[in-house]
Amino acid sequence: MKEVEVLKSVENYSVGNIGKFDDLGQYEYYHPLGKFNIPGKVFVGEALDMTSIEMSVQLLKAGAEIPFDHKHKSNEEIYVVIKGNGEFIVDDERIPVKEGSVIRIGTKAKRRWRNNSDSDLIVMVIQGKEGSLVNYNVSDGYM
Amino acid sequence: MKEVEVLKSVENYSVGNIGKFDDLGQYEYYHPLGKFNIPGKVFVGEALDMTSIEMSVQLLKAGAEIPFDHKHKSNEEIYVVIKGNGEFIVDDERIPVKEGSVIRIGTKAKRRWRNNSDSDLIVMVIQGKEGSLVNYNVSDGYM
Repeated sequence: MKEVEVLKSVENYSVGNIGKFDDLGQYEYYHPLGKFNIPGKVFVGEALDMTSIEMSVQLLKAGAEIPFDHKHKSNEEIYVVIKGNGEFIVDDERIPVKEGSVIRIGTKAKRRWRNNSDSDLIVMVIQGKEGSLVNYNVSDGYM
Repeated sequence: MKEVEVLKSVENYSVGNIGKFDDLGQYEYYHPLGKFNIPGKVFVGEALDMTSIEMSVQLLKAGAEIPFDHKHKSNEEIYVVIKGNGEFIVDDERIPVKEGSVIRIGTKAKRRWRNNSDSDLIVMVIQGKEGSLVNYNVSDGYM
């Protein structure tokens, strides 16, 4: 099974590669709670020693879906559509998505999503602790 | 000037769209500290009421670069290469990047990056508060 390529990881930074987005189908994630495999999904955070977010990327083939609602204990989720078309169902509202769609979902909302198109859907999912961010845009940086 | 399309924002979720990645050149970000414009860059966090991360996406044309090093006060940065080829310079190490490259950079590292190729480079930048995340992979979710 394909794994994240970790090229370097030191205290100040880590460098890795997940491969081309169109090749995400080579990954498979075993869901330890649900006890089922999720094809086309890869988590990156722990492999690259991230301390602020978790990140995963997933390729859903035409017609594929996440067949259950879920909520979160402490993490907000940000979904970014990298390629293709699909549909999110958030608190029972149906939201059509396409390349460039960005959805913020708070802990309390129930969510699921599916590829109701006839071609690949690629989505990046970012988890961060709800309410944790203090500095936005460039206000955290200094030269 | 192009702005993030905000389709809906309620307490539990927000929905927006930044457009196709190849069209990012329509954005321009005015850097309030540096007092210069950054073409092809858009920040998304505040527009979509994110509370856990800041997210921006940037298209660098062939030969373009971020011409200065910067560090961060409290946010770890995660860079994800969406398309193209380029180079990051982190703590003076030169790191070649390509589609699927993911780089974690801690607050203390100095960083800059450039498109040293002959075609567009598209990079997503995620900021989250260093050390803030508790639950990784699917451990934060529940059905």
